[in-house]
Amino acid sequence: MADDLLKYDRMVEGALLGVVQEALKLAASEGLPGEHHFFLTFRTQAPGVELEDSLQAQYPEEMTIILQHQFWDLFVDDDRFGVTLSFNNRPHNLVVPFAALTSFVDPSVKFGLQFNVAVEKTAPAPVPATVPQKAAPETSREATETSRSEEHTSELQSH
Amino acid sequence: MADDLLKYDRMVEGALLGVVQEALKLAASEGLPGEHHFFLTFRTQAPGVELEDSLQAQYPEEMTIILQHQFWDLFVDDDRFGVTLSFNNRPHNLVVPFAALTSFVDPSVKFGLQFNVAVEKTAPAPVPATVPQKAAPETSREATETSRSEEHTSELQSH
Repeated sequence: MADDLLKYDRMVEGALLGVVQEALKLAASEGLPGEHHFFLTFRTQAPGVELEDSLQAQYPEEMTIILQHQFWDLFVDDDRFGVTLSFNNRPHNLVVPFAALTSFVDPSVKFGLQFNVAVEKTAPAPVPATVPQKAAPETSREATETSRSEEHTSELQSH
Repeated sequence: MADDLLKYDRMVEGALLGVVQEALKLAASEGLPGEHHFFLTFRTQAPGVELEDSLQAQYPEEMTIILQHQFWDLFVDDDRFGVTLSFNNRPHNLVVPFAALTSFVDPSVKFGLQFNVAVEKTAPAPVPATVPQKAAPETSREATETSRSEEHTSELQSH
């Protein structure tokens, strides 16, 4: 098979991060409709993440936040979102670039997207530029950190 | 399961039509890189489709065009693209809104997206607003026109 010079995986990942952005924008402007709520998982060490030291220490790799009943000051930019959440009865401000997201799940309708970020925790060695990176969304809520270079299948599921 | 008031299916479909748009824009500005080439299938009766009468008569429902070696004047707007192709040794101009697309396939890397357009050929009766429409992309190159209202699975495959 020919090389994917157009990098469809990255195009699809970028497009689906746009879906997360759109959902967050709706939540920011109108609140969460019906029973919708979001689980957002992100890499706490990713560039641009703003997180208080206590949370950074508690979640050195990944953190999952829930936007459901108690969240405040949600804002959504082109490349990141921010929100205030309560942890241990104290408000914490977070800023998360979309590039740091590893998954988005809305359990109310069993919708999920998984993002495979450029930085591979299990593959610290540089990867040759011609080997496709994991860059496609998946449905599983489990964060799979294995590297699949030659072949991969992406799935979206909804409903 | 709760109603999908956020309509993720439509968000995902819109996002993935953006991938097609991005691929076409690259082809328009820089040509098709490497062995990439596109099969685009669209509903010839969809609003906004511009197609000469002879082709309209020959393809009364759907038409698949191939962008590979011989195409000219490709342009891409926010909501449509246009191109000149040769049929029977004569140039024909086509304009296709993205909303008319039913599939996009790049055989060079086995990448495909299928779009399930709002108009259901096999379900002419009005569908209640609360029943999810087929609106999610699929990989199969076959146009499946069956209606699945309660449950559906969408898949993307690449590589």
